[in-house]
Order: sequence, then structure tokens, then C-alpha cells
Amino acid sequence: MAKEYIDLDTLKYLLYDVHQLEEVLQQDRFADHDAASLDLFLNSVKEFSDRELFPYFKEMDEKPAYHKDGGVVVHKQVEVMMKKGGEMGLISGTFDYEAGGLQLPMMMYTASAFIQDAANNHLPGYVGLTLGAAELIIHFANKELNDTYVPNMLSGNWGGTMCLTEPQAGSSLSDVITKATPQEDGSYKMLGQKIFISGGDHQYADNFVHLVLARIEGAPAGTKGISLFIVPKKRPDGNGGLVANDVTTVADFQKMGQRGYCTTHLGFGDADDCKGWLVGEAHQGLKYMFLMMNGARIAVGRGAAAIATAAYQASLQYAKERPQGRKLASTGKKDPEQGQTLIINHPDVRRMLLLQKVIAEGSLSLVLLASKYYDLKETLKDEVEKEKYSLLLELIIPMVKTYPSDMGAHAVSNGLQVLGGYGFCSDFILQQYHRDIRIFPIYEGTTGIQSQDLLGRKLLMENGKALELLNNEIMQTIRQASEYDDLRGYANTLGEKLLLTQKVIGFLVGFAKKGDYERFLSDATPFMEFFSNITIAWIWLDMAVNAKNAIITGKNTYSEEFYESKIHAMKFYFKYELPKTSGLAEILMDEEVLTIASEKEVFS
Amino acid sequence: MAKEYIDLDTLKYLLYDVHQLEEVLQQDRFADHDAASLDLFLNSVKEFSDRELFPYFKEMDEKPAYHKDGGVVVHKQVEVMMKKGGEMGLISGTFDYEAGGLQLPMMMYTASAFIQDAANNHLPGYVGLTLGAAELIIHFANKELNDTYVPNMLSGNWGGTMCLTEPQAGSSLSDVITKATPQEDGSYKMLGQKIFISGGDHQYADNFVHLVLARIEGAPAGTKGISLFIVPKKRPDGNGGLVANDVTTVADFQKMGQRGYCTTHLGFGDADDCKGWLVGEAHQGLKYMFLMMNGARIAVGRGAAAIATAAYQASLQYAKERPQGRKLASTGKKDPEQGQTLIINHPDVRRMLLLQKVIAEGSLSLVLLASKYYDLKETLKDEVEKEKYSLLLELIIPMVKTYPSDMGAHAVSNGLQVLGGYGFCSDFILQQYHRDIRIFPIYEGTTGIQSQDLLGRKLLMENGKALELLNNEIMQTIRQASEYDDLRGYANTLGEKLLLTQKVIGFLVGFAKKGDYERFLSDATPFMEFFSNITIAWIWLDMAVNAKNAIITGKNTYSEEFYESKIHAMKFYFKYELPKTSGLAEILMDEEVLTIASEKEVFS
Repeated sequence: MAKEYIDLDTLKYLLYDVHQLEEVLQQDRFADHDAASLDLFLNSVKEFSDRELFPYFKEMDEKPAYHKDGGVVVHKQVEVMMKKGGEMGLISGTFDYEAGGLQLPMMMYTASAFIQDAANNHLPGYVGLTLGAAELIIHFANKELNDTYVPNMLSGNWGGTMCLTEPQAGSSLSDVITKATPQEDGSYKMLGQKIFISGGDHQYADNFVHLVLARIEGAPAGTKGISLFIVPKKRPDGNGGLVANDVTTVADFQKMGQRGYCTTHLGFGDADDCKGWLVGEAHQGLKYMFLMMNGARIAVGRGAAAIATAAYQASLQYAKERPQGRKLASTGKKDPEQGQTLIINHPDVRRMLLLQKVIAEGSLSLVLLASKYYDLKETLKDEVEKEKYSLLLELIIPMVKTYPSDMGAHAVSNGLQVLGGYGFCSDFILQQYHRDIRIFPIYEGTTGIQSQDLLGRKLLMENGKALELLNNEIMQTIRQASEYDDLRGYANTLGEKLLLTQKVIGFLVGFAKKGDYERFLSDATPFMEFFSNITIAWIWLDMAVNAKNAIITGKNTYSEEFYESKIHAMKFYFKYELPKTSGLAEILMDEEVLTIASEKEVFS
Repeated sequence: MAKEYIDLDTLKYLLYDVHQLEEVLQQDRFADHDAASLDLFLNSVKEFSDRELFPYFKEMDEKPAYHKDGGVVVHKQVEVMMKKGGEMGLISGTFDYEAGGLQLPMMMYTASAFIQDAANNHLPGYVGLTLGAAELIIHFANKELNDTYVPNMLSGNWGGTMCLTEPQAGSSLSDVITKATPQEDGSYKMLGQKIFISGGDHQYADNFVHLVLARIEGAPAGTKGISLFIVPKKRPDGNGGLVANDVTTVADFQKMGQRGYCTTHLGFGDADDCKGWLVGEAHQGLKYMFLMMNGARIAVGRGAAAIATAAYQASLQYAKERPQGRKLASTGKKDPEQGQTLIINHPDVRRMLLLQKVIAEGSLSLVLLASKYYDLKETLKDEVEKEKYSLLLELIIPMVKTYPSDMGAHAVSNGLQVLGGYGFCSDFILQQYHRDIRIFPIYEGTTGIQSQDLLGRKLLMENGKALELLNNEIMQTIRQASEYDDLRGYANTLGEKLLLTQKVIGFLVGFAKKGDYERFLSDATPFMEFFSNITIAWIWLDMAVNAKNAIITGKNTYSEEFYESKIHAMKFYFKYELPKTSGLAEILMDEEVLTIASEKEVFS
């Protein structure tokens, strides 16, 4: 097992220096916080993760959650995560004081959860979903429901879940058929099945509060007829106690990875005695759910960035310790009399490690930026500025979910390759990261769905205003970089890529204008790859500008070597990753139509 | 579990039509075979695989091989594979009649093993390594050793292995330190450790014949001092019996995938009583081993192509059966009143399936082509022609090993994505393919090592003659394709890519000419990706030419739809895969040096 799972310096550098947490802390909501106190919080999360999360990472994979006697048995650290997490504010941290929270900035919450995810990605989800469910109640449910459920959730005594997916519907929420029938007491009788419910049941919570999407009898078809319900595993009995609410744990899905993070199949109302309570208004369920979705998608991107980071640390450590082979002599031969070299000295190994580094740190920077946009749109007073950050967040959110997931999986696979045969062996940790991260391109909306959201909704939103705003942000970085002789070439390259982006978007939007939406969106996934690749180039150029500035102004929070290494990584990204967009642009602007279904059988 | 794991039509189409097995059968060595009899053989292998391999695939993963009481316990089907495989000629098939073989063409052996690999990749390796070990003995060892070991290996009663890797040396064979000390009786006393020995021990063989690389005392350092030894687990006692030979099964590596295919750690001579017998001459061990390496590398490419194929079949079947979501209307919206559609009708799902198809079938075509080159170089009489196919084989072999492995893993990951959340669940088979295939870019020489072989040795071999020969083959296909109006555009594109290839190679070889070998080879892996991508474009254009010709001449072995689907797949490859070489060429011709180790610390 590797000794370290993150580079705390880089996390703090991105948080404080590159993304300027201070700007966010100036908002009224965060008046009680300052950088110093938040730094202590971050350090305490790191200590907690070192002690309670990281040491159990491998064990939770080897002893996965399982279904037994109508419940799910999980690892004992789930209890620690819930209870200590509750105490430390890891559930309620970002909430209002009056809701029992700490009014932490999302940036700080993301940074703290990133550490936990990197230490052990099987655990933070239990807390994260409880948080998400509580947030929905706080925002949209009435006071009585708040008083009944929220306090026990924030303390970690009760778990919370999000119940969206059904067996027959999959990602298509318009096909949800779970039924809610109004009762005289104002509650609803629930009947239905939900699958893939993370953290849906275990032995360490006294109760579970499920936030369930369902259809009130007679509701319109499609997404407009979906309402949101609180359906607890045990409901209040009216005398301060709890009574079973006919929620059945049908199964625990056994999976390739994240095996310590249970994934349940829940049944509601098998015995005709399951009660639910409507959250907010009828038929508004999907709207409520999606107002919370940006946070959920930042969380997925963050988790994937964290696994990529931990895998990078593990393979870097291996490469620094493993002697193998020799350096090439100028004859092109290897001299057997020469001693072995560490594998970190082989160019191909360095290439794989740098690839991991640019993906992991680029992803982390992107999720922190999204968190900053989130904080600003929530707390700024100026409506124009508020709108600006809201639009920027909406535009980048599909990339925030997807880039760390897809490219993070690629990075981890390269990390495994660094270890050679050992990378494939269970005694080494890379294979677990490889298995764990593979769910990230799937849950909370697959890559295909995110890509359609990016191209089909976000780019065109408000006549392309979000895109224009992002373009302005990138142009600003290009201008800053152009002031430095040794960054100017990279700035120019990125400028050219922006022009290419306009060309590609113009080409694709042409189909939408002609009403050919199927063609417009048919290459959404390659477009996602293209557009996020260029976005991450910006992220890296921004980091290089910051580092360059620190070197020139003699700022010495970190060593000069540290800043130089960020500039080196930017160069690596521009040499080895950014050029891929040339081929992707060719793909996207190819006239040929090959993936739209027709009479022609193409799979024989 | 999916119902089918290969498309037998495509296999036979590639074997008989595209790669013209007949041309090979005309050689004297194969005089006793004709296409009809070989077809029966292939069908019998399919039946055997349906019955004895495929049904146990999932179970072998769930009940992996393990170490117990100094031995390795494997699944009972290993016995069936060895014994029935021996009977059916799956071990000895390609050998000379006088060595107990059937003189089957390598093309036919590859096709038959491909079926077995696709059915259950945990099993054929037991037979494959026994074959490899027997082949070394037959080619290089004396008659006495042949008589002692080979017959029991060909029948599948004894297992065979290749023992190369040692813990301290990894891929660097010049650092092998296993020691062989000459004894008075002509044998050697062996002392050393070998790791990652596939099929190294189990309960279903009466004996194991290990082919061990070791260093005779006083031998020169490096690869020139390595000799090859037969070291049996049990040695002949001189009275027709066997006696233990001090070979210890130290451990069985537990792995992420191929868990039914044991990977052992062997100790030789712990009790100072381990005897080995020299194969051929002293210090020639690596040369002998590498003469067998082309076959081993074809086998790895074949196995990866087979897994990619089986995964494609499984996800295709799922996509044809799973209803989810709706088709986009011309408004860009989905109509909830419209019924659900099968996911195979979603363009993004079709894109993923076609990607799987072009990688799987492109890989299979490449391994069959390599097998054909192998057969021709072995059996042609004309020395010039013999040399031609020998050079072609040498040039493509690193790609044959690497493309199916790397891109096959990518294809399988796309197949898993087709299933969404179910793809990650253990009840579905995609996750097993995803885990199994991940070893292919590692064993038998990692991607990094293959890439250095391709760029550093094969391209420059005999003044670039092999490259010129391959270029001629590709140009011939381009000329053929240019005769068809609807293929001409693709032919032109491939022609341009050939010019680009020359430019890239010219740029890189410039470094070698200046004596800067480290820089020359530092981007060998991106070069591998570039060069194999273009090679597979050729493979697909060749298939399209063949299909087009069949349609025009009214050849009706298969349906017109079948031939059209191959042309469609070619177009898909040219639209979605080939353009990636534009970005790769930019990467390869970038002057910047970022991955060669220097004083600068770039990982902080």
C-alpha cells in the first residue's frame, strides 16, 4: 500500500493561490471564516482521513457490503464515517447556521471531501448522500418534515438517499412509474421499486430517509408528472417512536468496484403499508432534484479526481523506489555493466506519470473552479455577477462530472501500467483504483447524457451567453499568459484552439438550426472530449500564469521547484494532450452520418 | 450471461475470403489439408468451446486459482482443457508430423485458439504455454530430452511453462541471476526464483516442464550470458519413474482478472537438489526464446482480440434487448407519449458498438494476417519471398501484440458503458472482460517495450526494408480501392496518412542519426498508437475492397447486408479513429523535450 494518497501542497495551492478562496470569503455569508481557520479545518480532515479512512481502503474492497436477513451489512468504518462525519460538520458544513450548518464555502467543502475521497472512496458517499437528501428537505419541504428528519440526518444518526432509477426506466426518468396515492391524513401510499440506491441500507443507521421520485395517481406522463417524496425506512409512530414503514431491502448489487459502498435495490409498499410525504408542490419533483444536481455532479467529478490523484501518488511512489533496466547509452544500446536505474528515469514511465499528473491536477482545479462559481452565484449581491457565475457553472458542470471520470479512468490505467505485472496483482493498490473509478463515467448521468446536456442544452442556453462568458474568461488567461515570453507560445496555441472551437460549434449547430436534432447530438460525446480537452488546457495555462507570477514576484509559499513543476506540467499538457483536439475537430466536422439508426443493419 | 461470444461468419470470412487461407494451403507442408477439412476442425473447436469452455467462464473468475499446501488449486475445467486439448491437437497442431503434430497452418491454429479465447480466456493459456515449451524442446534440445519430455506434453498429461521474469529484474532480462552450476553427469544444479509464471503448477498435470532462463556460472554479464534449461518439477529417476526435483511453488499471485489462469512464483533449488538440462548450446538461451516470441506475441494479440470480440457480442446483445429512453423528435424534445426505444437506436450507443466492432474485427484481421505471414515465411521455397514475409512479420509483430491489447481494453470499456449501471455489476459479464483484458498490455512485453521494439529496431531493420515492404502492401490496397468510386476517397485519405507517416518517421529518425537515442525513443508509445492506427485503417480498407468486390461480382457466401456492414465499419473507422493520427503526428513532431530525466524535479 502506498504511503500517501494526496499532495496537500497542490490542493492548498489550487484552493488559496490559483482559485483565490479569499475572493469567496469576502462575501457576507462567510464573514465568520478566514483562511487560517479554514486551513485548520482542512488539516483536521486530513488527520481524520489518515486515521479513519485510508487504513481501511483495501479491506473494504476485500470484504464488500452484502445482503443478509433483509438488510445490508457494511464495514464498521461506515459508522465512524457517519458519526464522526456528523460531529465534524462533514454533512452539514455548507448549510445555513439556522439549519444547523457551518456556512462553509462549497470550495472548502469540495477540498475537504476531496481529501476523504482520495483516502477511501468507499466511505464519503454515505455522508454525501445524507447531505444531499437533507439539503432537499431543507430547501423544499415544510417545517414539520424538516423538524422530523433533518437533525438526525445532520448528526449522522440517520442515513439519507436519493431514489431516482427504476429497473424499467434506467436513466430515462420520464419513465418512472413508482406510484403515490393520496391518503386522508395528508400522506401518500407508496408503491414501487428503486435500484442502484447508494447507501440505501446498513446496520449503522437507526433510520434511512429516502427521497423518492414518484408519480401521483393521475399525474401527466413524462417528467412533468413526477413528484418528490420523503419515504423513511421507519416512520414516526406519533408517540415519539418509530415504526417500520414497509420499505424492503430487496438486494445489494455486487459490483466490480466501490465494493464497500453499498448499492441497494429497494422495494416500497410490498405489504401495502408504505407511507411517503410530499416535498414541496406536486409535479415539481424533477425540478427540485435538478436544483441539487450541480452539487451532485461536482461531487462525482471530485471523487474521480481524488481517485486519479491517489493512483498517481501510488504509482509515483513505486516508480521512485523500483530499480529496473538501464538508461540508453548514446549507441542506442544498454550497457550491462552499468547499474540498474529507477524506473522513474525511463522516458516512457515519466510520460505516464506526467499524464496522470496533468489529468489529476487538472481535474482537481476544474472541480475547485466549479465550486467557486457555485459559491459566487449563491452569495454575490450583484444580479449581473450572480447570473454570470450561474451561467458559467451551468456550462462547465457536464465537463466537471465527465472529464475527471473519463480521463481519470485513463490516468489510473496508466498508473497501473507503471507497475507492470504488479499493477495487475491484488497485493498492489492500483488495480483497486482501476476498478473503483470505472463507475464514475456512469453514475449521476452517464458520459453520453452529460455530453448531450453540454452540446444540446448548455451551449445554446440564453443564446450562447454562457459560452461567451467562458470564452471571455479564457481570453483573459490568454492575455495574462501573453505577457510572459515563455508562455506566449502556449497562449497563442490556446487562442487558435478557441477559434477552432467556434468553427466546430458553428458546424454542429447548423444541424440544430435545420431541425436535425438527432444529427446535431449524434457526436455529442466526441464533442465533450474536444471541448473539455480545451477547457483543461485553459485550466493549466491559468495555473502556469499563477506559478510564473509567483516565481517572478519572489512569492515563496512553495519552493521555486514547485512552481516550475506546474509550468512543466502545463507544457506537457500542451504537447501530449491538447493536440488530440485536431483529430477530434476532424471527426466532428466530418459530413458522413454513420451512427444514426436506419433500415440498414450495420452490426452483422 | 450473453448467449454468444463470437461471430463465426466474420472469423471465417476473414480467414477464407480476406486473408485467403487457400494461398497458404498450396504450400507443400499443408498438402494433406484442404479448406473443407479445416472447416470441420474449426466447427469442432467451436462445439468444444461452447460445451467445455464458455459455460465455466464466470465461475472460474468467482472461484479463482489459489495456493494450498505447496501447490496451486485450479478449476476442474483445466483438466478438460489439457486432456481434451491434447486429444484434439490443440497443443501439437502446428508441429511437424514427425514431432507428433498435424502440420496445421498457423492461420488455422490462430483461428481455433481465437474461438477458445473468446469463450473463456482463463483456459487456453494452459495449453498454449505447454505448446510453447514443447516447441522450444523440439527445435533446440537433443533427442534424449525430446523423448523424455515431449510426448507427455503433447498429450496434455504434463504442463509446460516459460520461466523468464525474476523479482529483481522484471522485464529486464539482462538482469536474470538464476544460477546453473555444471554437474558431472552433464546436468546442471539450478538455483533461483521466477515470478509471474503462468500455469506454473496445478493438480491436473502429473508433471511440469519448466523452460528456465538462467546463467551458467562464469557466463558473461547481460543477455549474452543467458542459457536455456529444462527444469522439470519431477525428474526421471532412471527407472522409468519420477522423483521430486526441488521445485517449490512459493505462491500463486492473486490478480484483478484472469483469475482462473494461475500465475505462480516458483523457487528452484531451495534444498540444493534441483537439476536442469541445457537446451541447445550455452549462452544462446535468449536467442532461442526470441525465436519463439513471434508466436507468443501473436497469441497475446489474439487473446485480446478475442476478449474484445466477446465483449462486443455481449454488449450488442444487451443493446438489442434493452428498451430505454426515446428517439429525439425534430423539435429536439422527447415525446413522453411515444413508446420506449431499444438502446441500440440511440446514436451514442451505436457509436460505442461500432467502435467495439472496428477494434475487435480489425484486431482479429491483424492477427490472422500476422499468422499468414508466419505460415508463408515458414513454408515458401523462394528465398526472396520467404525473406519478404519474414520481414513483414517482424515489423508488424509489436503492433499485433499491442493494438488488440490497448485498443481492445478501450473497446471493452465502451462495451461496459453500453450497459450503464449494469455494466459495473458482477451479475453482468462486461466487468469481467474489463478486468481480464487489462493484463494484455502488460505481459509478453509491455506496450512501452513493444513500442521501443517497433520504432527502435523494426523500422530501421535492414535499412528500413521491412517498412518499404509494408508500404508496398498498403499501396496495393490503395490502388485496388481506388478502382471503386465509393472507396476512392478513403483510399486517398490513407495515401495521405502514408505520406504523413514518412514525415513523422523522418523527424524521429533524425534523433537516432544524431546519436540521441533517448530522445529518438522517448515518444515510442505515441508512435505505436500512430502507426498501428494507420495500419488498422489499411486492414479495414482491405476488408472493404474485398466486400465491395463480393457485392459487385455477386459472390454470395454471405448476405449482401453482411458485406455492406463491413464497408460501413470501414467508413466508421475512417471517420472516428483514423483522424486521431493528426493529433498524434503533432505530438510526435513537437520539438519540446519533456519526458527525459534531468536534474529538474518535475513531479513535485
